[in-house]
Amino acid sequence: MKIRMGMVGGGQGAFIGAVHRMAANLDGQIELVAGAFSSDSARSKASGKELFLPEDRCYGSYAEMFAAEAKLPAEKRIEFVAIVTPNFLHFPIAKAALESGFHVLSDKPATLDLAEAKELARIVEKTGLLYGLTHNYTGYPLVKEARDLVRSGKLGAIRKVVVEYPQGWLAQRLEDSGQKQADWRTDPKRAGISCCVGDIGTHAENLAEYVTGLRIESLCADLSTFVEGRALDDDANVLLRFEEKNGVRAKGLLHCSQISIGEENGLNIRVYGTKGSLAWRQEEPNTLVLRRPDQPRALVRAGDGCLGAAAKAATRLPMGHPEAFLEAFANLYRNFAALVRARKEGTTPSEHALDVPGIADAVRGMAFIETVVASSRSADKWVSLPR
Amino acid sequence: MKIRMGMVGGGQGAFIGAVHRMAANLDGQIELVAGAFSSDSARSKASGKELFLPEDRCYGSYAEMFAAEAKLPAEKRIEFVAIVTPNFLHFPIAKAALESGFHVLSDKPATLDLAEAKELARIVEKTGLLYGLTHNYTGYPLVKEARDLVRSGKLGAIRKVVVEYPQGWLAQRLEDSGQKQADWRTDPKRAGISCCVGDIGTHAENLAEYVTGLRIESLCADLSTFVEGRALDDDANVLLRFEEKNGVRAKGLLHCSQISIGEENGLNIRVYGTKGSLAWRQEEPNTLVLRRPDQPRALVRAGDGCLGAAAKAATRLPMGHPEAFLEAFANLYRNFAALVRARKEGTTPSEHALDVPGIADAVRGMAFIETVVASSRSADKWVSLPR
Amino acid sequence: MKIRMGMVGGGQGAFIGAVHRMAANLDGQIELVAGAFSSDSARSKASGKELFLPEDRCYGSYAEMFAAEAKLPAEKRIEFVAIVTPNFLHFPIAKAALESGFHVLSDKPATLDLAEAKELARIVEKTGLLYGLTHNYTGYPLVKEARDLVRSGKLGAIRKVVVEYPQGWLAQRLEDSGQKQADWRTDPKRAGISCCVGDIGTHAENLAEYVTGLRIESLCADLSTFVEGRALDDDANVLLRFEEKNGVRAKGLLHCSQISIGEENGLNIRVYGTKGSLAWRQEEPNTLVLRRPDQPRALVRAGDGCLGAAAKAATRLPMGHPEAFLEAFANLYRNFAALVRARKEGTTPSEHALDVPGIADAVRGMAFIETVVASSRSADKWVSLPR
Amino acid sequence: MKIRMGMVGGGQGAFIGAVHRMAANLDGQIELVAGAFSSDSARSKASGKELFLPEDRCYGSYAEMFAAEAKLPAEKRIEFVAIVTPNFLHFPIAKAALESGFHVLSDKPATLDLAEAKELARIVEKTGLLYGLTHNYTGYPLVKEARDLVRSGKLGAIRKVVVEYPQGWLAQRLEDSGQKQADWRTDPKRAGISCCVGDIGTHAENLAEYVTGLRIESLCADLSTFVEGRALDDDANVLLRFEEKNGVRAKGLLHCSQISIGEENGLNIRVYGTKGSLAWRQEEPNTLVLRRPDQPRALVRAGDGCLGAAAKAATRLPMGHPEAFLEAFANLYRNFAALVRARKEGTTPSEHALDVPGIADAVRGMAFIETVVASSRSADKWVSLPR
Repeated sequence: MKIRMGMVGGGQGAFIGAVHRMAANLDGQIELVAGAFSSDSARSKASGKELFLPEDRCYGSYAEMFAAEAKLPAEKRIEFVAIVTPNFLHFPIAKAALESGFHVLSDKPATLDLAEAKELARIVEKTGLLYGLTHNYTGYPLVKEARDLVRSGKLGAIRKVVVEYPQGWLAQRLEDSGQKQADWRTDPKRAGISCCVGDIGTHAENLAEYVTGLRIESLCADLSTFVEGRALDDDANVLLRFEEKNGVRAKGLLHCSQISIGEENGLNIRVYGTKGSLAWRQEEPNTLVLRRPDQPRALVRAGDGCLGAAAKAATRLPMGHPEAFLEAFANLYRNFAALVRARKEGTTPSEHALDVPGIADAVRGMAFIETVVASSRSADKWVSLPR
Repeated sequence: MKIRMGMVGGGQGAFIGAVHRMAANLDGQIELVAGAFSSDSARSKASGKELFLPEDRCYGSYAEMFAAEAKLPAEKRIEFVAIVTPNFLHFPIAKAALESGFHVLSDKPATLDLAEAKELARIVEKTGLLYGLTHNYTGYPLVKEARDLVRSGKLGAIRKVVVEYPQGWLAQRLEDSGQKQADWRTDPKRAGISCCVGDIGTHAENLAEYVTGLRIESLCADLSTFVEGRALDDDANVLLRFEEKNGVRAKGLLHCSQISIGEENGLNIRVYGTKGSLAWRQEEPNTLVLRRPDQPRALVRAGDGCLGAAAKAATRLPMGHPEAFLEAFANLYRNFAALVRARKEGTTPSEHALDVPGIADAVRGMAFIETVVASSRSADKWVSLPR
Repeated sequence: MKIRMGMVGGGQGAFIGAVHRMAANLDGQIELVAGAFSSDSARSKASGKELFLPEDRCYGSYAEMFAAEAKLPAEKRIEFVAIVTPNFLHFPIAKAALESGFHVLSDKPATLDLAEAKELARIVEKTGLLYGLTHNYTGYPLVKEARDLVRSGKLGAIRKVVVEYPQGWLAQRLEDSGQKQADWRTDPKRAGISCCVGDIGTHAENLAEYVTGLRIESLCADLSTFVEGRALDDDANVLLRFEEKNGVRAKGLLHCSQISIGEENGLNIRVYGTKGSLAWRQEEPNTLVLRRPDQPRALVRAGDGCLGAAAKAATRLPMGHPEAFLEAFANLYRNFAALVRARKEGTTPSEHALDVPGIADAVRGMAFIETVVASSRSADKWVSLPR
Repeated sequence: MKIRMGMVGGGQGAFIGAVHRMAANLDGQIELVAGAFSSDSARSKASGKELFLPEDRCYGSYAEMFAAEAKLPAEKRIEFVAIVTPNFLHFPIAKAALESGFHVLSDKPATLDLAEAKELARIVEKTGLLYGLTHNYTGYPLVKEARDLVRSGKLGAIRKVVVEYPQGWLAQRLEDSGQKQADWRTDPKRAGISCCVGDIGTHAENLAEYVTGLRIESLCADLSTFVEGRALDDDANVLLRFEEKNGVRAKGLLHCSQISIGEENGLNIRVYGTKGSLAWRQEEPNTLVLRRPDQPRALVRAGDGCLGAAAKAATRLPMGHPEAFLEAFANLYRNFAALVRARKEGTTPSEHALDVPGIADAVRGMAFIETVVASSRSADKWVSLPR
């Protein structure tokens, strides 16, 4: 049987909920069987109807869903909850889901602040349930290949990391137009203490640490709010210092922006080591540029025979048949479903299935956001991340 | 309720069957409920089990499936059949499905030869059922935009068309290794009179006619078999002459290859008119290059606000969140499901839903393949396509 | 002392004359000392003055120049003549120069027709003087590398060649506007029997034969004149068959165009062998794409340590400092100057210096033009090139 | 007559001297007539001989050259001096040249430190002679177009600037191998207080200020020396704050590196304003990416009809005929020669000719280098540039 999913959020007109559903659908491993798509019961049912759900599995609140589903027979009730609401609801929903006995796969950032993230970590530990966080860009095959190239030592000791995430969609006051995505992301009550860093900077941080296997130790940030009247930042420039490894302390830059007109969704990373370098761009995700001294520049392509096991396992199609954003996202869902299945069947999940960002990434991401904001307000040059 | 699909072919180890299933899954509009995945009943059931199908809906032959499903209650039985077998089975399966009352969505080429295609056209007409053909590359949003740009007259009268489809995977005798895809594609009994043109040249032909709205009238072909001992062609170079339109008779070139080492899946098209030109490449499908005299080269991107209605309807994500092969394929499935639903509900399908290659494309494609082979054998310079 | 050059053509307002002069200047090996820049003596002197030439070395005709210069002391008179006039003058000027004892470096195509080219070959042989033809695209370092890769056998036996030369500048009747370049190129009396093939198709042919080392044996051409009222072709699509080598007869396509709106100067070539393939584009000349089975795509870059001797000798700057059109052109001039110097000093020129297209290329190019035109008019599929 | 140039430095085996000579040669406006190519008189003469100079114009020191040339008749002696030595000699040579009455065109950085630069500014003012600095990247046509786009207001008020200059050639201890370029650049006595920032960071700074018309007000730098035993920095990450303009204070990042393996000469800039953005990369210098909200991404190409006057004046060839590094460099030489000529003839130089970086850029660049080094050593977050 497919793994049964319940969703919180993602009703009509939402963006990320539909993305999660497509990601869950793609591989035919997961079935959406229930949802609290809206805090308005009628809207929730209307959304569920479009998704071919029976009315009695469409709930008016997550609390109602968790209570009702918990009473259903084990072979019918939801097994995990996908959380696709604005940020401020991530924590209470995840907490309630876990305490009701359901695994959780949550959109990022995990919580509203670091304190909540730490509390969530305690709940995950206490309940022993699965918790996944959709840092979806790590789902790309060539991001996994990049990580494995660094791990294998082929780039040598890492010296420099440049990670960027420019966007331009908030270059004007889009929030005034009633655009839903802009509205809550620029509202401290619903988004947290940062707009730009919370929404996309944290993806960049996660990507940098995922690929390099290095933790950021300290940073120096310059946050800006370029659009007048906006309560949160819409641009960030950050100097990075990583932990020392192999005798080298890597340095880096991270910058992200929502006011860089013309940029679409330009997440990209470059990593330079003592023996070689790599570069990857989200908008052209099927190419990894690999450079070694005295060798021609190599374009490693998704589907290449030379790729490692993790990249191959994350790929569905032969070379030249491009896979993209939804397939990368689906890799997280497929892996998470495999974890749920292994837990249920008492088997050991594969190494690939375990490659889902989890509660440690959740805490790490919130620590990053808070440190960037603190640094930007500080006259000190370097501010350390809490360990 | 979701639209119910039965599949013929696509058992364990098959390539294109899995692609069709992911395309069908993505949007949550279609449910796979039955299959004749293999002509071996046990293998078919084993394949079905992996797909979470009940054993009694996994059949040992398409004939068995059509007979059994026809006896099921209307709200339970399959509504359409996806055909994902080697070429020589497309026709008999499509014929049987239609004659059993099921709509058909078939992989290409539609049949083994032109005569079969014409016969199929008669059956489609007679039964009045839906027939779709997965010329999946027309599912890309920017291919639809390209077509609409030509239609709108923005490029003026079309003068020149260059369409290419290079691959390199058959540069060696892969068929000797037992590789399943290579095995049947190079076998005239199962593939038809052409390997390269039948498998990919026909996609190029379909793309050129779809985008330009012009029919190829005559052609001059040079087919090659570069790999010794191979019974069918593995490379084709073709000069094209199109029908006259707006006072201009467009000329063109089409070349396709399976021996072009290093090429992946390089379908691409360039169209030059009296007022402008466009270029599109399948491997980077989210960019359409548009060139007008005395204007900078424009890179139209998937998700661009300036796109037309067809491209927008075929797009699921905002700019910079790349969609790719499976999403384009899924556009055909989504549209076909909408046609099936409209038929069932007695409603008029949307213009977008109607944008699925059908029986006319099927006949056209087979005519193209036969004409290319005939031209290659002829000492005459130009050979006309049958009308 | 620098090698002394006289120029015929290239007066005020001319395009290609200035290109030749910059190419001659770049390396400081050549000095322009005389010119017949125009058939109007005053205009010639005015042009020469801008070039800081003394009035008495600016002539009103090439005949006058050759006569006067021949009388100057050996250490003062011109050593070679650069011919940069419209096509129809190439032959008489080259003939006169050679017969006056001057080496010749001529723009292409070498003559107005094949008969003239053969006659020119006889004159070159008879006089024993140097003759160079500015097929300047062979001057690019990575074109030389491409040739050497094929020669070395790294691509195996060549199977397929695709060479393109699209431009768009004649998409309208530019010749009506008095634009000088368009005016004579579309005039059969001054350009010869072809506009597009003579002007750029011959570069494509030369490039294909230079890189592959294979001769085109026969071809099948479809010439078009898309712009109404134009006397010559402005577009050509050609199927190619090459001589057999290593047991393989390579096939190919060549197309060139002056009506492909939006194309700039898009000469490019792809060569596919049994062991690998390469691709090169003139507009991005510092990258050569090299593809081998089961290896990542390699981007060989100008200046790469891995390059062969010919490419290195043709490069002036380190990697990442792009060289381009004028530097490639200058490579021909530098090599030709080295040949003149070696001849004068009685030394053996280096292998690199000998890498200048010469009279054989001149004859070959004219044979190609005439065969394409003949094929386009023929109902026979294949027309052979004269040997 | 051509403008007469003398050169200091650039003898056999030198890199940048040859670049300057090719740049000076290209347009035929300048003649190299004398040189102090080496501090060894015999080596200087040997170098001069290869350049076809008479022995008596090849000097053993710059002092000797200036003294001897000053005694030559006005119509024979050098008019300006090109300085192409290691950094520490730039100032004394420029000083001596100016005080001997010769205009100066110097390689960058202008001097060894800011104090020298200020002193040089006083000498330039006092002598009233011309001083140019080869920030050659500003010579690219599309860099001029970028500047003009910003100036015109088409991008609105500037919010963010990202400028990068990664190289990888010093990733190992190349200086130990005796490589001449690496040797002096890593030696504080000859290079100054910075290797990476002095050599290439200053180009990035100059480019950012040239294109945006904004001055950097303060910065926060993190310099690194990744290669053990090296006395100077080989990598720099810098946060920038620009002066306020149009009510907006632009922020930015500048990073440069000599240890980024695989990078060639990757200078590039992105500028984001309230109405649009642009991007330019030195390694593909003929394309400028221009992005406006709700318009397709535009690739402005060198030679485009839509370009402004400055870009057009800096271009020699039609679209698609790429110009590159040497042509951009030659633009500075051509402009400087025009300034010298205008001065000599008492005419007003054209606006284009005036577009040569001068003494203000020289001072500015040295201030930047010193501020970056100071900031890197400081615990304060922001350090202001001296005004």
